[in-house]
Amino acid sequence: MLAQTELERALPAGLPPILLATAATPSVAALRLPFEGLGPEGYLVRTVTLNGRPTLLIAGNGDKGALYGAFALIRHLATTPFADTLSLSSAPRVKLRVLNHWDNLDGSIERGYAGQSLWDWWTLPDFRDPRYTDYARANASIGINGTVLNNVNAKADSLTAPYIAKAAALADVFRPWGIKVYLSVRFSAPIELGGLKTADPRDPAVAAWWKAKADEIYRAIPDFGGFLVKANSEGQPGPRDYGASHADGANMLAAAVKPHDGIVMWRAFVYAETDPEDRAKQAYTEFKPLDGKFADNVLVQVKNGAIDFQPREPFHPLFGAMPRTPLMIEFQITKEYLDFATHLAYLGPLFTEVLDAKTGQKRGETVADVVDGQAEGHKLSGMAGVANIGRDRDWSGSTFNQANWYAFGRLAWDPDLSAEAIARAWAAETFGNDRQVVDTVTAMMMGSREAVVDYTGALGLAHLMATGHHYGPGPWVADLARPEWNPVYYHRADAAGIGFDRTTSGSNAVGQYAGPVARAFAKPETTPESMLLWFHHLPWDRRMADGRTLWEDLVGHYDRGVAYVGRMRQQWDSLKGKVDAEIWQKTATYLAIQEREARWWRDASLAYWMSVNHRPLPAGVRPPEHDLAWYKAQHFPYAPGQAH
Amino acid sequence: MLAQTELERALPAGLPPILLATAATPSVAALRLPFEGLGPEGYLVRTVTLNGRPTLLIAGNGDKGALYGAFALIRHLATTPFADTLSLSSAPRVKLRVLNHWDNLDGSIERGYAGQSLWDWWTLPDFRDPRYTDYARANASIGINGTVLNNVNAKADSLTAPYIAKAAALADVFRPWGIKVYLSVRFSAPIELGGLKTADPRDPAVAAWWKAKADEIYRAIPDFGGFLVKANSEGQPGPRDYGASHADGANMLAAAVKPHDGIVMWRAFVYAETDPEDRAKQAYTEFKPLDGKFADNVLVQVKNGAIDFQPREPFHPLFGAMPRTPLMIEFQITKEYLDFATHLAYLGPLFTEVLDAKTGQKRGETVADVVDGQAEGHKLSGMAGVANIGRDRDWSGSTFNQANWYAFGRLAWDPDLSAEAIARAWAAETFGNDRQVVDTVTAMMMGSREAVVDYTGALGLAHLMATGHHYGPGPWVADLARPEWNPVYYHRADAAGIGFDRTTSGSNAVGQYAGPVARAFAKPETTPESMLLWFHHLPWDRRMADGRTLWEDLVGHYDRGVAYVGRMRQQWDSLKGKVDAEIWQKTATYLAIQEREARWWRDASLAYWMSVNHRPLPAGVRPPEHDLAWYKAQHFPYAPGQAH
Repeated sequence: MLAQTELERALPAGLPPILLATAATPSVAALRLPFEGLGPEGYLVRTVTLNGRPTLLIAGNGDKGALYGAFALIRHLATTPFADTLSLSSAPRVKLRVLNHWDNLDGSIERGYAGQSLWDWWTLPDFRDPRYTDYARANASIGINGTVLNNVNAKADSLTAPYIAKAAALADVFRPWGIKVYLSVRFSAPIELGGLKTADPRDPAVAAWWKAKADEIYRAIPDFGGFLVKANSEGQPGPRDYGASHADGANMLAAAVKPHDGIVMWRAFVYAETDPEDRAKQAYTEFKPLDGKFADNVLVQVKNGAIDFQPREPFHPLFGAMPRTPLMIEFQITKEYLDFATHLAYLGPLFTEVLDAKTGQKRGETVADVVDGQAEGHKLSGMAGVANIGRDRDWSGSTFNQANWYAFGRLAWDPDLSAEAIARAWAAETFGNDRQVVDTVTAMMMGSREAVVDYTGALGLAHLMATGHHYGPGPWVADLARPEWNPVYYHRADAAGIGFDRTTSGSNAVGQYAGPVARAFAKPETTPESMLLWFHHLPWDRRMADGRTLWEDLVGHYDRGVAYVGRMRQQWDSLKGKVDAEIWQKTATYLAIQEREARWWRDASLAYWMSVNHRPLPAGVRPPEHDLAWYKAQHFPYAPGQAH
Repeated sequence: MLAQTELERALPAGLPPILLATAATPSVAALRLPFEGLGPEGYLVRTVTLNGRPTLLIAGNGDKGALYGAFALIRHLATTPFADTLSLSSAPRVKLRVLNHWDNLDGSIERGYAGQSLWDWWTLPDFRDPRYTDYARANASIGINGTVLNNVNAKADSLTAPYIAKAAALADVFRPWGIKVYLSVRFSAPIELGGLKTADPRDPAVAAWWKAKADEIYRAIPDFGGFLVKANSEGQPGPRDYGASHADGANMLAAAVKPHDGIVMWRAFVYAETDPEDRAKQAYTEFKPLDGKFADNVLVQVKNGAIDFQPREPFHPLFGAMPRTPLMIEFQITKEYLDFATHLAYLGPLFTEVLDAKTGQKRGETVADVVDGQAEGHKLSGMAGVANIGRDRDWSGSTFNQANWYAFGRLAWDPDLSAEAIARAWAAETFGNDRQVVDTVTAMMMGSREAVVDYTGALGLAHLMATGHHYGPGPWVADLARPEWNPVYYHRADAAGIGFDRTTSGSNAVGQYAGPVARAFAKPETTPESMLLWFHHLPWDRRMADGRTLWEDLVGHYDRGVAYVGRMRQQWDSLKGKVDAEIWQKTATYLAIQEREARWWRDASLAYWMSVNHRPLPAGVRPPEHDLAWYKAQHFPYAPGQAH
């Protein structure tokens, strides 16, 4: 049994005998333990007396529960001494806890910063790299139970027989660890592979093609999870090409996998170059009217915010607005907009900030309540994380990036966990349970994402990065083909003020939010300062809560972000000799890179804002190192992770 | 001292005390040992008596010699028990023993099959991955003393200040291991980076730009090795664009690095789409007249054969034909044309076959004699190997591919070593000195390259692979833009016969060879059967030495190649439990892939030849599994290593 092996690898000596069992094991059944609420994946770990002897029981309603229980025990004992009255119990609140790999068939990864794709498509299905097993173990240990193998910008080839066989080999490796395989599909595959003239979802030949394709996949992978679809978004084909709706497209695919208990995850990330509406509004506008129109094995997958994985965004207005549809939330674990692998940014606080946000739709309802689907009685629920995993030795490009993979898994299992508790557990499991190490690492992590917000653009600014690769500052960019690709579209800075007016006097994106939330966002006074310029265009000399002007406050945020990174370097220095030397050195080097680049972000941004608002820096503030022209001249043609 | 650390890591207990020294160490000088012929890199390892005690002396004229001596001792003791009268001594016959990395700045590797580039350009120069040191150690252990960091299809960006700093960081890591860094340069860089209107090597502004660039590089890397140039070849810019000669171009660059003791390696791999001449002849035609025209710090780098790293080619006719010019030989360690990383093909016999070939220019002169430059008294000599190294855990895509890196290094140090001795040493150093393991592994290796020749096309056939990625069979391909890109250009098969007539009745490429070699190649009777169809177009029913017809013989080669792989699988099976389990499993899987693909090569090729010659298979020969149309329909859009 896999759980047994994991326990033997990880547990200290001196524990009572361990019994891995299920609720149906006769000796366990006699104990009358509370298995009812655990479902197929929940676990119960408890010290019990069996045959007169103290025994550590790890059990669930089935093997999956016992496996998750074993990992829970290992995690618990990594941070807490064994106690005779140990009692742990948990069941996942979210059913589909899924990684999205934006991995291409040529081995590159869109927005990947940890080397090539872990999947060596070239040697699959023959060679099953032992790392595939390690990947599955790592995921199972944090509760992840599904993985979408290929990029949402999908090639039709992933649905050909050779690639189905490759996916099946991975599914074979992952299955014992409770992990299902899913595929991203290209909506026009019936044309490209099937030779049909259309991919119109209402065409019976198209539906038949997908049905046959699903049948073919399920013959190779009997427990195949289903399809993830990016349609009519950023150039991808979709049902709108034929005048059909997203629901038409999703339901047609859902019918194909339905006989096999498969599901469809349909992304709501759409915005059209022909649509002059505020990009932040378009997904809601397109999908809200479709509520109730999706088949019961479809989930609509909604990004955490309405733009695109910025260091901070307000929660997406669709959460709570489609009560008749199970909405998955999609987070990005890979740090596309947070300067990639070298910047230490713990995303736990980003994830929990969104999950904990009140939707305003129902009294007390949070985004997490929508995502777990329990209020509406949805049988499906899901959380997706765009993976930060590659073939590099440290899996994620840096040791600290592993914490974001870890935090995603833990929160998908239990969205009520605190980001800090997760950070502490990760630190202890990663570096050992030395108090100074855990305290210091946790302290570094907890403010690190806010530091990125501060040095890249605080107060609700967003999408200020350079073009294409999204690395480094580019708030001045104004020459891209589509208006909503340009940073100037987002910040709208001029001599008088800065910010995107999304109130009734502007795009009225606030109108997509419900009741009290909409009312709060409608006025600067009641909008959290952290999101102020997301919703409002305001004068540079507006007074902020602390009495400073907006401009002074913004400058202060840049300096605070840079200073935080400097502090992290000092904190990390204090751990030299207390963590693995190789990990210490690499992390120290990366923090030095981060501090330099944080300064660059700050300096470039200030130089630009000053060119727009013609204001001096507040007294005592360090001027940018270079002039604006210098920052504009920086180019990085070989930045990693670019789409191609 | 690095050598000391290596000895401590690797040597068994129970040896006498070891003294690492130089010839100038007083106690060593008193021994009057023969240091004269060792040069700056040679070593001497000997049991001596010092202060009345037996001592194992490792020494050279300088530190490099001692380092190479330490590795030689480690290698010696991996295969041979320690003897009290140990005496090893060697000096490299070739001065520049250089890897060519076809690594792109975006991390991809042209013709790379072992993952991304080992150089993480993105985090350089800050982060110095410990693997850079391991890479340098591995190279030093086999005598390699130079590395060209970037693709010969070079981007000008590699000459910008940020990339010079990155290269300098690598040079810092490699320097203690006796390894110099070189860069491939784009000939048009003065236009792209310098804003000049021309890159004409005769233009003083161009020469001045390169001089300043060289000065800049040497400020960052004082022992920078020099430039590698692919000019006027496959779309690369070069001096011919301006009517200047290759010598003009090389000499202009040579002048730029000359004050710093740098050198230029100028590739002779040229063929022009406008030139109707047999591609095999064009490099000779272009370069032979330039003999004597190159500056004294230029080497001309010539591929081992006149086409392009085929499984077998006759040696390049330029060897021996340019006595006034130091000619480097360029081998390809990565297996672009031998079906990539999954096929076991030990290249030692390919390397030695070429090095041992008689040029026919001078009595007894071999290619190795030309390459080491001693006959002509050249102060420079060199051997280049296109690296098979990437970021994968096993460095080279498979364990056995490491043997090709190893063999290249050993032969660059001493071209007289036998491929079998190298294989045995590698096997012992890799798997341990178990007699059965070493014998079996060596036996597998020694015939493996010939097997690839047999199952891809024997008897001197070449360039029969599929287009672009060069994976798998494509002898039918006839529709590519340039004639010499098409396999049909090379095999010229029709109903009557097969082969490329390179005699006086054909292209007269044999006329580029000297004296007895030219005479032998001029007639089928005196051409080795292994190169028969390279030089001659012959009837399908020509009688071969063994009495069979050419067609029967060719079919026999295909079957022999496939059978050899089957035998390797059995041999490897016999080692289960005797080598590391993970390595065993991966290799066994790869051998299964290789056997399947060897059959595919055989079947596809036979189906095609039969469609051309309309001949039945000899009695008892298995027919192809599919019809020709099936083989033609195979496509591999995501094959690794493609240029882009």
